[in-house]
Amino acid sequence: MKDLLHTPEGVRDYYNGECAGRRKVVGEICREFMLYGYQQIQTPAFEYFDIFNAERGSVASRYMYKLFDRDGETLVLRPDFTPSIARCAAKYYQGINVPIRLYYEGNIYVNQAGYQGKLKESMHAGVEYVGDDSTAANAEVITLAADVLHSVGLTSFQIEVGDVRYFNGIMDEAGLDDEARVAIRACIEDKNHFGLEELLEQHHISDQVAVVLDRLPQMFGNPEDILEEARSLTNNPNALHAVERLEALYRQLHEYGTDSYVTFDLGMLGKQDYYTGIIFRGYTYGTGVEIISGGRYNDLMGQFGRSAPAVGFGINVDELMQALYSQEIPVEGRPEAVLILCGEDRFGEAVREARALRGQGIPVHLMAEERDLRDLQFYIRENRITKIIHLPHGSSEREVTEKKKGGI
Amino acid sequence: MKDLLHTPEGVRDYYNGECAGRRKVVGEICREFMLYGYQQIQTPAFEYFDIFNAERGSVASRYMYKLFDRDGETLVLRPDFTPSIARCAAKYYQGINVPIRLYYEGNIYVNQAGYQGKLKESMHAGVEYVGDDSTAANAEVITLAADVLHSVGLTSFQIEVGDVRYFNGIMDEAGLDDEARVAIRACIEDKNHFGLEELLEQHHISDQVAVVLDRLPQMFGNPEDILEEARSLTNNPNALHAVERLEALYRQLHEYGTDSYVTFDLGMLGKQDYYTGIIFRGYTYGTGVEIISGGRYNDLMGQFGRSAPAVGFGINVDELMQALYSQEIPVEGRPEAVLILCGEDRFGEAVREARALRGQGIPVHLMAEERDLRDLQFYIRENRITKIIHLPHGSSEREVTEKKKGGI
Repeated sequence: MKDLLHTPEGVRDYYNGECAGRRKVVGEICREFMLYGYQQIQTPAFEYFDIFNAERGSVASRYMYKLFDRDGETLVLRPDFTPSIARCAAKYYQGINVPIRLYYEGNIYVNQAGYQGKLKESMHAGVEYVGDDSTAANAEVITLAADVLHSVGLTSFQIEVGDVRYFNGIMDEAGLDDEARVAIRACIEDKNHFGLEELLEQHHISDQVAVVLDRLPQMFGNPEDILEEARSLTNNPNALHAVERLEALYRQLHEYGTDSYVTFDLGMLGKQDYYTGIIFRGYTYGTGVEIISGGRYNDLMGQFGRSAPAVGFGINVDELMQALYSQEIPVEGRPEAVLILCGEDRFGEAVREARALRGQGIPVHLMAEERDLRDLQFYIRENRITKIIHLPHGSSEREVTEKKKGGI
Repeated sequence: MKDLLHTPEGVRDYYNGECAGRRKVVGEICREFMLYGYQQIQTPAFEYFDIFNAERGSVASRYMYKLFDRDGETLVLRPDFTPSIARCAAKYYQGINVPIRLYYEGNIYVNQAGYQGKLKESMHAGVEYVGDDSTAANAEVITLAADVLHSVGLTSFQIEVGDVRYFNGIMDEAGLDDEARVAIRACIEDKNHFGLEELLEQHHISDQVAVVLDRLPQMFGNPEDILEEARSLTNNPNALHAVERLEALYRQLHEYGTDSYVTFDLGMLGKQDYYTGIIFRGYTYGTGVEIISGGRYNDLMGQFGRSAPAVGFGINVDELMQALYSQEIPVEGRPEAVLILCGEDRFGEAVREARALRGQGIPVHLMAEERDLRDLQFYIRENRITKIIHLPHGSSEREVTEKKKGGI
């Protein structure tokens, strides 16, 4: 019997204040998306495996939850939203040459062995801005990310921005094979200095290139300083073009008033070869990992038959909630409510009063008057009751108790 | 490549106006739940198979989507919400002697062979009211169901209410085995008159009992008439008790002002032995099946280790949307928005104006001014733009176009 009460490992229930708080935060995130003109899209919880395979997805096949269709096709619970949204953008907006602004919210499923309480079902919300390769599009999504974090009550956060084309430009000059490239990329991303030096020696990288790569893991911080250094270290036109784009981006973020949240990190490259331009992550204290992760991926849509540039980000809602709790930022999603304690002979009166209050948008709980006090107090607390209207049996009295600070 | 654009059979994407309309309707449903004091609960999309097995679930095992945990446990995508909510009510509210009002919204998954475009992933929203066996609790959930249908814009709908205890009382008298009982129940539920007569003869049912059972498939319509007839046909105390409860319920629905939406149907029994008291379904035109389905199930919670009476209902959101479209009840979930067409040299001005408007809760789309007119019209239509502010390049002009009826 006891087993019947449990959820599988890595998934959980949300109820009471926590559930309401989570819904409130997601509501505020979606409101911000809406204010920037993004339209919601909903894709199925499972899709064909191919949508998320190694060419397109960000999660290894062995970490996906697989199930089977009636005709034997392999389906997977979505481990990521971006490939699904890219599929939709390719399918529903063929031949359309205007930007498409889409947002989503929902759960993703990653079947990783549980560690540090990491969830296998976790809630994400994000945007994809398709069909615009401008730095203005980059500035919009980064600003939107900052506005979202503001809207949920965070005041202390940072968005680190890089651009993989700086690294890619430098690497093109070195003329290495893919394997070496991936290895070097991983060392820079992990800020593994010793590993990097070894690889640079092993592959006989020219001094001119080596000096930049060697410096990349430390190239983070104040945008002006980073860009100046980045420019001074190379003559590669693609790398210099990336620097120019970042400069334009920084100017536009300044116009938006969001430059103060942004630092640059040219050593941020991502584990996968997924991004093709800017890449960014949002951090705050109270959680060990990034709460926002995004970037530009101009090659993904083409895999669904319609080439189009795209930039977007996703918010890890569970990590964000964790950060809000750690920072003691109050999130109360339950509205204040009225409890009507109803004598048996006063049902009609009670329901009419309840209906009138509900018409004003006030939640009303109806309850028979005979209740144990301790149980009643539990109900009041759990349901955020701030006013009790008691209509006692055999009387025409009306006893009203309102909540004073700290309790009823 | 083409295959990469498809979703698996029986699941689909929702986007643009349809997605926004669906979210709006779900938002209104949840608001109504909240006004009645229900708190949201979220359970995982998959759980152990046992939670939904034949003793507790409403869907046969072969219609469930199964997947496997890392330790080989069989998991299923939830085919139904009620067992999950019952599990939570048993787990999180042990030893508490007050009612628990919970609501949920989300998808359920039933892997039935596709017919009539029936969806395998479909959205449901509903309530479970645990710990109160009174007819007042029954009246509350039926009234809430009616209020929900009102709130989304339906004016013409009907809620049919039965009570399985009337049939059960009569059947107890007949003293048949379970198999015969299930067969007779199915004939009554399907209003299969010939099948029923055959069974009554075959099992040598006494005339006194046979006359009621024979009549049951026709015992639907005006509550007063049905109750009078039901009372006149039997002396069985349990059946008569059911009639009394329905009378009390009807009086309370009258106090709520929702009696006009309600008819009684004593032949409505449900396919499963799931319900233990009232059972009800909500119908409207424009969809072939019920949009609301609910009832009392006082035996379910006990299976999770904590006996408690419970009553609730679920709304089939996809069928409800279908009905709204068929009845041409407009559902517009996209807010009216402003488009700022921005000359290259006026970016700062544009983002400041956008920020000011967003601060007032108005969605603003930012776009570079060079656009093909046809593409722009598509964007305006899809995004419900009702005002365009054009800030042309190389000028300080500000051209404002507002939507007149029917287009911009």
